[in-house]
Amino acid sequence: MKLYTYFRSSAAYRVRIALNMKGVGYDSVPVHLLRNGGEQLAPEYLAINPSALVPSLQDKGTTLTQSIAILEYLEEVHPQVALLPRDALGRARVRSLALMVACDIHPLTNLRVLRHLVQEVGLSEEAKTDWYVHWLREGMAALEAHLAHSRDTGRFCHGDMPTMADCCLVPQVFNARRFNVDMAPYPTIARIDAVCAALPPFADAHPSRQPDAE
Amino acid sequence: MKLYTYFRSSAAYRVRIALNMKGVGYDSVPVHLLRNGGEQLAPEYLAINPSALVPSLQDKGTTLTQSIAILEYLEEVHPQVALLPRDALGRARVRSLALMVACDIHPLTNLRVLRHLVQEVGLSEEAKTDWYVHWLREGMAALEAHLAHSRDTGRFCHGDMPTMADCCLVPQVFNARRFNVDMAPYPTIARIDAVCAALPPFADAHPSRQPDAE
Repeated sequence: MKLYTYFRSSAAYRVRIALNMKGVGYDSVPVHLLRNGGEQLAPEYLAINPSALVPSLQDKGTTLTQSIAILEYLEEVHPQVALLPRDALGRARVRSLALMVACDIHPLTNLRVLRHLVQEVGLSEEAKTDWYVHWLREGMAALEAHLAHSRDTGRFCHGDMPTMADCCLVPQVFNARRFNVDMAPYPTIARIDAVCAALPPFADAHPSRQPDAE
Repeated sequence: MKLYTYFRSSAAYRVRIALNMKGVGYDSVPVHLLRNGGEQLAPEYLAINPSALVPSLQDKGTTLTQSIAILEYLEEVHPQVALLPRDALGRARVRSLALMVACDIHPLTNLRVLRHLVQEVGLSEEAKTDWYVHWLREGMAALEAHLAHSRDTGRFCHGDMPTMADCCLVPQVFNARRFNVDMAPYPTIARIDAVCAALPPFADAHPSRQPDAE
């Protein structure tokens, strides 16, 4: 498998964790989102993924896009180690937690949006940061409420084994820390993040451990 | 099943289509996103879904949130009519197309974000519309490229049967039309939307056909 990735992309980070969890080897192809006017916008990359986003995963001659679709694909073709529980309600809960990150937080706070806010909407750097922190806090508070109020939450987001939800939570917490967002209001998220950080599949997927890290 | 819905919510619209496709009966509980300061923010609804978003689906005493997780759940517990193909690569493609709407377009253009842009960021109505149209066009262009360049695209997004991707595409096109976005640059999307519109499960899920329609 070949993974088009950027060390700091939290969507690529999710997929790196899952590949590591499942013990699936892959080749990293770095796509630098800032250099050369954004390598994701180069014609060669747009031919691979017209959405101009990372990650893309190539397997069996086919290109897969969208990190959550890639996680589901890996779960289907490499069922061990499982990243979804067996019961339908549990699977729905894990997917829902993952999507709270992937739909409600990350799309509002990713690089292309922050850049658009400054360059096209005309926000100051301070107003851009306010925007970032607002949606991060909003999303983290909702995720914390879902996690803290459910008896299905265990050492990890769902029970005592990591799932897709943890693959999404950890990169989002990494981003929050980069923007100096105080994690104190989200004790369940912070606790789960700390448990994950100690596991090699998570540690090895960390941005600082990638070949393209700066 | 009980669906907390708002007639114009495109995330709820996706789930309504899937429920109709599968012939699963449900009770609609309207949550008016504008009235009474937003009924999704009322303590009674936050106790159901702390994310303050629709849809929520209640089944077997459990509340499910996040439309894409709900579509996956319905697919697992009501496998007929199938909304995903059988092969892993095909399933990944359908999920990816669905997520191009659910992650790359809708989160940037939904009600809470448009409201925040005006009320907190201080954008004019005109600048708000520019924002909306920008992300809609960006996302539609990417989706069109993915659809137009793949031989897997058929009468519908994937082959000749509707899938989760169509459940997401149709509500997004409805939104685009509401904002008078010209669909001419997206002929494949427009063609698929027209094919879907003729099918009763899609027609019956239309906002204008809901009990809370205005």
